Amino acid sequence: MSRDNLPSTDLTSDQRTSLLSVSALTLKARKIGLDTRKHYVAIIRGDCALCRSAGFRSEARVNIVFGDSKIIATLYIATSPFINADEICLSESTWKKLGVEDGDKLIVTLANTIDSFSAVRAKLHGKTLSDLEFKAMMNDMVEGRYSDIQLAAFITTCVNLNRDETISLTRAMSESGRQLKWSHYPIVDKHCVGGLPGNRTTMIIVPILAAYGLTIPKTSSRAITSPAGTADTMEVLAPVNLTVEHMRKVVDQEGGCVVWGGSVDLSPVDDVFVQVERALDLDSQSQLVASVLSKKVAAGSTHILIDMPIGPTAKVRSHNEANILSRLFFEVGEAMGLKIEIAQTNGQQPVGRGIGPVLEARDVLSVLKVEKEAPQDLRDRSLFLAGKILESCGGISPGEGIVEAQKIIDDGRAYKKFEAICNAQGGMKDFTLAKYTHVITSNQKGTVLDIDNRRIARIAKLAGAPDAPAAGVDFYISLNIQVEKGQPLFTIYAESPGELNYALHYFHSHPDVILIGEIP
Amino acid sequence: MSRDNLPSTDLTSDQRTSLLSVSALTLKARKIGLDTRKHYVAIIRGDCALCRSAGFRSEARVNIVFGDSKIIATLYIATSPFINADEICLSESTWKKLGVEDGDKLIVTLANTIDSFSAVRAKLHGKTLSDLEFKAMMNDMVEGRYSDIQLAAFITTCVNLNRDETISLTRAMSESGRQLKWSHYPIVDKHCVGGLPGNRTTMIIVPILAAYGLTIPKTSSRAITSPAGTADTMEVLAPVNLTVEHMRKVVDQEGGCVVWGGSVDLSPVDDVFVQVERALDLDSQSQLVASVLSKKVAAGSTHILIDMPIGPTAKVRSHNEANILSRLFFEVGEAMGLKIEIAQTNGQQPVGRGIGPVLEARDVLSVLKVEKEAPQDLRDRSLFLAGKILESCGGISPGEGIVEAQKIIDDGRAYKKFEAICNAQGGMKDFTLAKYTHVITSNQKGTVLDIDNRRIARIAKLAGAPDAPAAGVDFYISLNIQVEKGQPLFTIYAESPGELNYALHYFHSHPDVILIGEIP
Repeated sequence: MSRDNLPSTDLTSDQRTSLLSVSALTLKARKIGLDTRKHYVAIIRGDCALCRSAGFRSEARVNIVFGDSKIIATLYIATSPFINADEICLSESTWKKLGVEDGDKLIVTLANTIDSFSAVRAKLHGKTLSDLEFKAMMNDMVEGRYSDIQLAAFITTCVNLNRDETISLTRAMSESGRQLKWSHYPIVDKHCVGGLPGNRTTMIIVPILAAYGLTIPKTSSRAITSPAGTADTMEVLAPVNLTVEHMRKVVDQEGGCVVWGGSVDLSPVDDVFVQVERALDLDSQSQLVASVLSKKVAAGSTHILIDMPIGPTAKVRSHNEANILSRLFFEVGEAMGLKIEIAQTNGQQPVGRGIGPVLEARDVLSVLKVEKEAPQDLRDRSLFLAGKILESCGGISPGEGIVEAQKIIDDGRAYKKFEAICNAQGGMKDFTLAKYTHVITSNQKGTVLDIDNRRIARIAKLAGAPDAPAAGVDFYISLNIQVEKGQPLFTIYAESPGELNYALHYFHSHPDVILIGEIP
Repeated sequence: MSRDNLPSTDLTSDQRTSLLSVSALTLKARKIGLDTRKHYVAIIRGDCALCRSAGFRSEARVNIVFGDSKIIATLYIATSPFINADEICLSESTWKKLGVEDGDKLIVTLANTIDSFSAVRAKLHGKTLSDLEFKAMMNDMVEGRYSDIQLAAFITTCVNLNRDETISLTRAMSESGRQLKWSHYPIVDKHCVGGLPGNRTTMIIVPILAAYGLTIPKTSSRAITSPAGTADTMEVLAPVNLTVEHMRKVVDQEGGCVVWGGSVDLSPVDDVFVQVERALDLDSQSQLVASVLSKKVAAGSTHILIDMPIGPTAKVRSHNEANILSRLFFEVGEAMGLKIEIAQTNGQQPVGRGIGPVLEARDVLSVLKVEKEAPQDLRDRSLFLAGKILESCGGISPGEGIVEAQKIIDDGRAYKKFEAICNAQGGMKDFTLAKYTHVITSNQKGTVLDIDNRRIARIAKLAGAPDAPAAGVDFYISLNIQVEKGQPLFTIYAESPGELNYALHYFHSHPDVILIGEIP
């Protein structure tokens, strides 16, 4: 049976050419300042002459072409006079991606089906996905071809990946953006799997290791659901939006850096996932491992220490969960040629005193400057983790790493290196604390029995962190200490009275954030 | 350990009351005619004074309250002057659901997490879901509390339900809207699992069975992805948007009806799924069975015949797939107290001649009026299926059902009953064919070896069906017949020249819709 024998029609080639134009709209770009986060969205008039005949309808996926730029966006139809029949209103993300100006002519056509999405269907029906399938999906996702509904289906499906699939996903993610190569060896890195407010050890570990002579080109993330990411905190003290060339220069000169990963385009597809993962609040070990390790592979790292805090309100809640996750890290890391070390740490309470970019930066500086009032727990954790890396990559004997790290801090070398890194990144900055504060005190004498990390983080976020960098929570207590009635427990910092009140309101609706009582 | 011992603060109760107001915005409703299908969407100004302090951000889920009406919507932030700082622009769906007028004051607060969504996470982590969990999810979904991302995660997760879960889902869906009760017994029904253009047997079977004396209160759907649903086709000849009271009156008087299911609120949560299923193009037997049977249970049916066409481009592609699907229908049907009968039928090619509401209505009338040119295949299928039901519910001996059905059509009783039903539904209507046509002819002599149902349906849709009811395709050939060079294969009908051209353009890009050649 051959498909060469086809029926024909009596259409002329001129007619055929004109047909092509019926399926495309040419419209004038208009900026309306609509924030749709990373989603590409466009709005056109429903009564536009060609809309119906060309099959345009709300929520259709369309190609939008401007010169050499082309994206796939979700279309909405409006009938309101706020938009003219010859206009196409673009969301900010679409506007920026296409690089258009008001009035530019855009060509809109219906988008084809995304071929790679058939892999999601196949996986749901029991198929194991291959390297090639993940690669095709990541390509389409990083180009913005997946709608949020399709991304949600992908994320949901990928909650249950086997080991090989997690390796394929990690590889495909790591190839979705830039891949750094270094002439040094080893390239060390550390990563905390999160969930612990104030755990800002990176900014202390990097200068210790760099001062020792190791190479640690650290890229960090901004906050996704937390009150501060390391990039947000570092930004209080120095620029973090560096180009790759600038980052290389800093690392070549100082041996280390702390820059925002988003500006150097490592595993950029991860940012596409994050929006949807956040909306769904889905926990998946495969996604977590692929997200972390794909960035490390792309960064050219060879040796990675994973800090895995364990606690009932941390990301990893039990030792059993930690062990399963650790094994996946080892297996995927090995397949990607990475040397992985895991430090399971105590994740029962916040680290340091401050929660929020400025307050955390203050704590970091305090530790690096070896100030008397520096938070001991933040110092201890940083020394412990830095010591581990010195032992595995720096030729220091087992048990001696922490001692070496302590020396490097205490003799001022770490602070000096930190200053040098800040200056190399564009100049060290000063900061001020937020103006509006409210002290929460204990209404009774007793022992601190429980601290809910997630709710403490929520209070800091409601107070404005991280968008308002000086907003957050300053913490005065820790688990198991005795408090007196009237003793300050924590202070809420905000940059506006409204935000302060909002955080307070949340605290009053959820007063069990801190549990004080008698030890049973 | 008790949570009664809580820290307090020095806030007065007045201060606490004022806190509540900071987290709510009061804004004036404004209509902008934005079509977001069933999704509830609202847009506010980003620089509105309270936005930031209250935590409003793009894609946040918010409660919108107007008097006694309350919905959860997806929020977007815009900075453009097209929207004022004290305004909230609502999509059409939101506007209609809340029942507001321009300038009405709405209260907006951040929405809480949807508790029932945790069941989706649990299912992903291996838990079998219960009746109660499905019930809670359906309640939240039918109230519009799920975002499309959450719906996509639910739909994706439910591709793999076991038998008991499918039963629970069916029950929960059937309870998501109105549930009809009848004093007659049996209440018969039929359903075609779809994928076969032009298969409009319902409108012929209903009058046959009603004329015989059975009770068949048939609710049908509008097209989702096809060029016409039975409700769209019936609407060419009579009103189908009946109230439940009106529907009851028709059935009490005539024994049968053909109305749009959407207007009588049976298993309304199914409409919520459909949007997302369509966007994902996900096939799931569980969802299919739950969708079909939940509507039948809600309609109060007792005996159901499932027409299951099998063909390479039909919904069910093989006998093996049909057998697995049939077993699930039987098992779920039995659990719901339904008597299920399944007719696996030939689904290799379109049925009748017309594809599109008006053209299909013309075929149906032609069969009911026993016209010489009536499409024989549509008549045969209808008689076969009606005969099956007469045998299982009407006391007719096996093998005699089809003979009885034939009598009822040929002596004019079926047409008379159909006229009576149309009149009871609000009056029989006339129709006219579309003005713009193009005949596709064969470019060679040969045998019709293959017809791609999906692409034929696509051509009819691009021509405008079902929104333009007279648009579609009129088909002159069937599998295995001989055609001459220049012989008409089908005619495209459209209500505008643009739509006609668009359909033609698709045909020329996919000329293998019909395969003509020599039998190998």
